[in-house]
Amino acid sequence: MEEQTKRNEIEQLGKFNLINRLKENFKIHHTNTEVAVGDDAGVITFGTHKAVVASKQFLENIHFDLSYFPLKHLGYKCVGITISDILGMNAIPKQLTVNLAVSNRFSIEAVDELMTGIRACCQYYQIDLIGIDVTSSVTGLCISMAAVGEADAETLAKRTGCKENELICVSGDFGAAYTGLLLLQREKRIFEATQHSQPDFEGYEYLLERQLKPEPRLDIVQALHKNNIVPTAMTVVSDGLANALFHICNANDLGCTIFENKTPIDQLTFDTLRSLKIVATTVALHGGEDYELLFTIKQDDYEKIKNIENISVIGYMGEKNGGRYLISNDNCQIELKAQGFIQQEKEQN
Amino acid sequence: MEEQTKRNEIEQLGKFNLINRLKENFKIHHTNTEVAVGDDAGVITFGTHKAVVASKQFLENIHFDLSYFPLKHLGYKCVGITISDILGMNAIPKQLTVNLAVSNRFSIEAVDELMTGIRACCQYYQIDLIGIDVTSSVTGLCISMAAVGEADAETLAKRTGCKENELICVSGDFGAAYTGLLLLQREKRIFEATQHSQPDFEGYEYLLERQLKPEPRLDIVQALHKNNIVPTAMTVVSDGLANALFHICNANDLGCTIFENKTPIDQLTFDTLRSLKIVATTVALHGGEDYELLFTIKQDDYEKIKNIENISVIGYMGEKNGGRYLISNDNCQIELKAQGFIQQEKEQN
Repeated sequence: MEEQTKRNEIEQLGKFNLINRLKENFKIHHTNTEVAVGDDAGVITFGTHKAVVASKQFLENIHFDLSYFPLKHLGYKCVGITISDILGMNAIPKQLTVNLAVSNRFSIEAVDELMTGIRACCQYYQIDLIGIDVTSSVTGLCISMAAVGEADAETLAKRTGCKENELICVSGDFGAAYTGLLLLQREKRIFEATQHSQPDFEGYEYLLERQLKPEPRLDIVQALHKNNIVPTAMTVVSDGLANALFHICNANDLGCTIFENKTPIDQLTFDTLRSLKIVATTVALHGGEDYELLFTIKQDDYEKIKNIENISVIGYMGEKNGGRYLISNDNCQIELKAQGFIQQEKEQN
Repeated sequence: MEEQTKRNEIEQLGKFNLINRLKENFKIHHTNTEVAVGDDAGVITFGTHKAVVASKQFLENIHFDLSYFPLKHLGYKCVGITISDILGMNAIPKQLTVNLAVSNRFSIEAVDELMTGIRACCQYYQIDLIGIDVTSSVTGLCISMAAVGEADAETLAKRTGCKENELICVSGDFGAAYTGLLLLQREKRIFEATQHSQPDFEGYEYLLERQLKPEPRLDIVQALHKNNIVPTAMTVVSDGLANALFHICNANDLGCTIFENKTPIDQLTFDTLRSLKIVATTVALHGGEDYELLFTIKQDDYEKIKNIENISVIGYMGEKNGGRYLISNDNCQIELKAQGFIQQEKEQN
C-alpha cells in the first residue's frame, strides 16, 4: 500500500457507499442465484426450494467490549444477529457455520463459555451447526458466522416489492439495546475511574437484556406464516429504524411517512433516556442493535395483522422518489436524515 | 475472564482437539442437515438437490503478511481457499458471501485492490457474490467468506465412505506453496536487515504462484464428473498431505500406506528445498497451503483414472485401525506422524 500514489480515506465514503462500491462489477453466472448482493441475505434456488444465506463478522473492541460483555452472552448474541438476517427475508434459519480466531489471552475455559452461548442460541432456535473452525489471532477475538435458512417461493420477502400507500409494520420496540449499551458504558467509566464499583442495574434488566441477549424474531416470522401474511418488502432493523426505512425506500424508489406516536418505545427505555437527557425517538431511529423486523403489507392485510402481538403499524409508504418523513407528536413533518448508526459512527472515529 | 479460577491454555489441546471439543454437544434438529460438523463442508438437502456450505476466516499477520502479499492476490487466494472446501466434497462452488473488517490503515484504493482480486477469482471460477458487508477493525485486515456449492446425491463425496485396499489419489503436487512462503520470508528478512533489496525471484515463479495465487481444483472435480468417477472419500489438502490422510483414516477407522516415490513433488520445489537443506518429502507431508484434492477410489476405477492429467495414485487404504505409513524411496516403512501444519505451529507460538 505504501506504493499508492493516491490515497482516499474510507471515512469519506461512509459504510453504505463503501458497500455499494465493493459490490460493483460482479457478474451473476448461475440461474439459481435469485437474490445476490443488496438484501439482508442471498437467495439460491434448489429445484422448488429456496436457500437463504447470510454471513456476519464480529470483532473485539469494534462489535463488543469484553470488559462488560460476558462471553456466554456474546456467543448467544452473535448467533442471534446472524440468523436475524435470514428472518429479515421471512425465512426460517436452520443451519450455521462458525469461525473463531482467538489470541492466547483466551483460555480453553473462555472458549468453552463462548461456545456455551452459541450452543444455547442454536438449541433455542433449532439451528444445526454444520461447520466450525478455529485459528489463532494476534490480538483479540474475532468471530464470523454464516447462516442458512429455508424459504418458500410464496413467502420469501425481499427489500424490494412494496408499493405506495402500503403499511409499514415493525416488531417489538426500539432504542432499548442502545440504552442498555449507554448504561454499561457508564458503569465501565465509573469502574475505570474508581477501580471499585458494584454496578447496580436493578430495574434496568430489560435494557441490559436487549443489549446483551437480543432475541431474533423467529416468533414474528412464524406468526406471519401462520396468519397467511406475506410482507411485500422486509428487512431486519440492525442499524436503527431510520436506516432500515431508507433501505426499503431506496430499494423501491419510494418515500415513507412514519408517526412518532406509533413508533414503539418501551417505557423504561423512554424514562432512562430522559434521565440521561437524550430524546428517545432519536435513539429509536438511529440507536441500532434492535434486531427487530420492519416490513410492509398491503392495506387489505391490516385486519389480519392488527391483533398479532408485538407488531405495530407505524406509517405508510409514500410516493415514488418522495420524501421520508416523521410526523412528530406535536404534528410537525420532520425529514428523516440518512444519519448512520450512532454506534457505527462512534466506532469509525 | 479474570474471574476464571482454573485456566488451561489452548496450546495444550492443539487445533484439531480444540475443534473436536468445540463441536461437542450440538444437537441436529433438521432432517435436511445431511452433513454437520466434521467434514470439509456442511451439506443441506433441498428436495432432490444438495447445497454444500463452508466458511473461512483470514486474519492479517496470522494467515497473511501484507509486507509481501499483494492485496489483489490476497483477495484471489481467499476466494480460492474458501471454494476449495466445496471442491473437497466433489461439489461445484457457485455462490459466495464476503465480510471485510478494515482498519483506517487501509485506503479506499487498498480495499479496491482487494476486491479486484476477489472479483477476478469469482469471475474465473464462475462464483456469484450474494452478500458483502464491511465493518471497522481496530488493527489490521480481517476477511471472512462463506461459499455455497451444489452437489448431486450420486457424486457427493464425504470424508467417510472408503474401504480397505481402495486407492489413494491426489491432484497436482505438494510442498510448492510452503517453499514459496520460505522464499518470501527470506526476502523479507533480507529487506528488514538491509532496508534495500531488489528481490530476485526469477526462475522461482511457480513457487511464488503456488503461495500467492493457488488455484482451486475445479478442473479435477470436473474431470471426475466427466469420467464418471465418484471418490469413495475425499478432502481438500490445506494443512499438509499427512493431515489430510489422517482426516480420511480417522473418519473411516482405517490405516493407510503411501509411497514416497509416488508422491508428486515438482522438480523446482525439490531443488529449492535441497538448496535450503530441507527434505522435500517433509514439506510435502506437512507444509500446507497446497489446496490440492485427496480422494480414494475403488480399485476397479483405476483404469478410468490413470490417464487423467494431474492426478496421481500415491498409495492405498490399510486395515481397520491400522497404522499410517510412508514407504520411503529406500524402501523403509516410516510411520506418519500426526504432526500439525508447519505454518500453523509456527503461528501459534
